[in-house]
Amino acid sequence: MTYCCGILVRDGLVMIADTRTNAGLDNISTFRKLHVFSNPGERIMAVASAGNLSLTQSVLSILNEGLENPETGERETLMNAPTMFQAAQRIGRAIRSLAHTEGQALEAADVKFELSFLFGGQIKGERTRLFMMYSAGNFIECTRDTPYLQIGEHKYGKPVLDRAVTHDTDLYDALKMGLISFDSTMRSNLSVGMPLDLLVARRDACVAELAYRIEPEEPYFQDLRRRWSAALRAAHLDIPRPPYLGM
Amino acid sequence: MTYCCGILVRDGLVMIADTRTNAGLDNISTFRKLHVFSNPGERIMAVASAGNLSLTQSVLSILNEGLENPETGERETLMNAPTMFQAAQRIGRAIRSLAHTEGQALEAADVKFELSFLFGGQIKGERTRLFMMYSAGNFIECTRDTPYLQIGEHKYGKPVLDRAVTHDTDLYDALKMGLISFDSTMRSNLSVGMPLDLLVARRDACVAELAYRIEPEEPYFQDLRRRWSAALRAAHLDIPRPPYLGM
Repeated sequence: MTYCCGILVRDGLVMIADTRTNAGLDNISTFRKLHVFSNPGERIMAVASAGNLSLTQSVLSILNEGLENPETGERETLMNAPTMFQAAQRIGRAIRSLAHTEGQALEAADVKFELSFLFGGQIKGERTRLFMMYSAGNFIECTRDTPYLQIGEHKYGKPVLDRAVTHDTDLYDALKMGLISFDSTMRSNLSVGMPLDLLVARRDACVAELAYRIEPEEPYFQDLRRRWSAALRAAHLDIPRPPYLGM
Repeated sequence: MTYCCGILVRDGLVMIADTRTNAGLDNISTFRKLHVFSNPGERIMAVASAGNLSLTQSVLSILNEGLENPETGERETLMNAPTMFQAAQRIGRAIRSLAHTEGQALEAADVKFELSFLFGGQIKGERTRLFMMYSAGNFIECTRDTPYLQIGEHKYGKPVLDRAVTHDTDLYDALKMGLISFDSTMRSNLSVGMPLDLLVARRDACVAELAYRIEPEEPYFQDLRRRWSAALRAAHLDIPRPPYLGM
């Protein structure tokens, strides 16, 4: 399993991904799922992946090699995409191209063609954007109303985002909320695990302001988890007990 | 969808169920899913159900009519079960009996035989017990290590239970945590909805100390939701922002 979330606020973009992969509970590994593509000052992009690792890695390899445009002969990659929307379309085409070459063989082996991506970033002159791509190569875009998108094991970490994150949230507060959302998820689902990779891209900088890996022993994240637990316990205690008895 | 949880602490049992049923998002109704069986002072039992409503209602009807014991000829119900374990076995037999009569016809119509139950309570002379029953009629029992069980849409409301509830939690604090868990679930999944039905059964009383329906406008629950949201916002603010930039 996997958990990745992207948060798009006024000041920029946060993306966070775990690194745990598993083929059954007895075969657990660490793989990077957050991939950054950058030409500093001109474009910053990141892809976070969930689903079958052989498929998501292949999609990224296809994108890195480039998809030939049959009309122009150009090899289209994320790095030469003119807009974020067209870059998202290229990811969609890479997914479909993989489904075309691999789908039948996988189906015959009872392996489902399941994957999803978050794709976020900014190309100079455009606004920062965040997309979620499905197995069919189609995608949705994050808007102000709900300023985050999630893939993988999204349920445990959703309530905290729903309550706390708005378009106006400070960029590093958004990162903090994202990390709290990962804490909730990792407590409830063992198949989401440390280390965590994260990217912070401030609006209009077109560069990774922060690209960081949080290791299990990292003191800030340990402290965040302790503080959050203590605050929740205190919050429970502060709420009066139900008065229904004898009503 | 549905969300039900049962919490079993030292002092007794709490069970809570929502009442929303849906056949598609455009066909939403209210049905009681928490059913109490009681002979006050001698036994208190409750069944909470999730899954296909036609199936869960039929299982309850089978149990109310009684399953004939082929050896003794006795009609076995929950009300005449000698122990909680044997009562749970009777629910399992009712599930299997229904699967036997309905399974093929449903399968032909592409309707999955999907249901689950929480079954909790106490018979005088025994301890309070809580079980979770699966579609195959098998079941697990709640133990001290994890003093709660959930059926239906369990993920959104699980983190708060994981953090806050232990075997030593006060009975009405357990009810409060359960209600917070419902708040988180209802915020994230529209197919779980008010009113909520709840039962509190204090250990060794063998009676419903509290059997209550929380309606949408009920002031305590509204206040709990407001306080919980405010406390979470305060908790977020109290945690320092990530220091990674420039590290």
